[in-house]
Amino acid sequence: MNQQYSSVLLEKAVDEFAKLPGIGRKTALRLVLHLLKLDVATVDHFANSITTLRHDVKHCRVCHNISDEEVCGICSNPLRDESTVCVVENFQDVLAIEATTQFHGLYHVLGGVISPMDGIAPSDLEIDSLVERVGKGGIDEIILALSSTMEGDTTNFFISRKLSAFTDLKITVLARGISVNDELQYTDEVTLGRSIVNRVPFTIK
Amino acid sequence: MNQQYSSVLLEKAVDEFAKLPGIGRKTALRLVLHLLKLDVATVDHFANSITTLRHDVKHCRVCHNISDEEVCGICSNPLRDESTVCVVENFQDVLAIEATTQFHGLYHVLGGVISPMDGIAPSDLEIDSLVERVGKGGIDEIILALSSTMEGDTTNFFISRKLSAFTDLKITVLARGISVNDELQYTDEVTLGRSIVNRVPFTIK
Repeated sequence: MNQQYSSVLLEKAVDEFAKLPGIGRKTALRLVLHLLKLDVATVDHFANSITTLRHDVKHCRVCHNISDEEVCGICSNPLRDESTVCVVENFQDVLAIEATTQFHGLYHVLGGVISPMDGIAPSDLEIDSLVERVGKGGIDEIILALSSTMEGDTTNFFISRKLSAFTDLKITVLARGISVNDELQYTDEVTLGRSIVNRVPFTIK
Repeated sequence: MNQQYSSVLLEKAVDEFAKLPGIGRKTALRLVLHLLKLDVATVDHFANSITTLRHDVKHCRVCHNISDEEVCGICSNPLRDESTVCVVENFQDVLAIEATTQFHGLYHVLGGVISPMDGIAPSDLEIDSLVERVGKGGIDEIILALSSTMEGDTTNFFISRKLSAFTDLKITVLARGISVNDELQYTDEVTLGRSIVNRVPFTIK
């Protein structure tokens, strides 16, 4: 590609911003020109917040959610109900469920759903660690709170099979108040809250 | 504000992204979570491209456009017509005019337009350096290519007054009228009115 701007440095910065999801070259240029107008300390602070995050952020060793500590604030909170674990796909889903204020248990963040199309196998997800966690005892109920998609359903099925040895364990899914093909993180809070309250036993259809 | 996420580092990075123009907190979170998924080297490269740009980018000492060198590629190009200088507001305007391939002279980037509402005075802009540049001789025509707004018109007026001492200098503005491919019925009244008053002889191109 030919050079488009009068500055290679500018070109490179725009290229980097344009790699971000949903950011085109016009938007990237606008953002970069905005950064150019800020003072050096502010821009350094911006860049630092990114590198520090990437280098220092951890995943909670219990629930695998994004955390600054070895064990996250939810898992280490004595007021949360340790006997109920809600299995979610990612960080945003934890945010979405926390926003409903309807759930007081702990989480287990899978890091995705099983998706042969995207090359995501069960071994890429935190499924074994979930089974191990249940095996340690103290968990009465697993709520499968995955997106209502084919991949989510497949993952629900896979997990329920993996957990079938624990005969006393109650496995539930979110009530089907959420529409088919909806992404969990974009579901409105009332619908999502109700579907947690009205969760039903998991059955294989 | 209360902490919203399970990680202060994440919170800070989202805060920084959300300061960018046109980026809300949801988009900021999406961008930051995307960066978290990339490997460390890629994220370092991204952050570096921003700090390097801010620290090392220069403004051409002739036209004040963004440049990696003391004198930019347009000003140092011997094929460009040095006798015609196009006065623009900012870097994007240079890009826009270059994209037309209709202009072969040099530029002068003001860095904005006079705007008392935004606290931008003539002394904040590269107007004195324009007068100085014209004073050195060799410039036959100044094209005022500012936005067709009250601020643009004010700036045009101010510059033309400042340059009035150079009696041989031709000062022009961009032609104003209806846009190419515009439907007449949707053109605003002021533009349409002006384009009737300033009508030109019909020629077959």
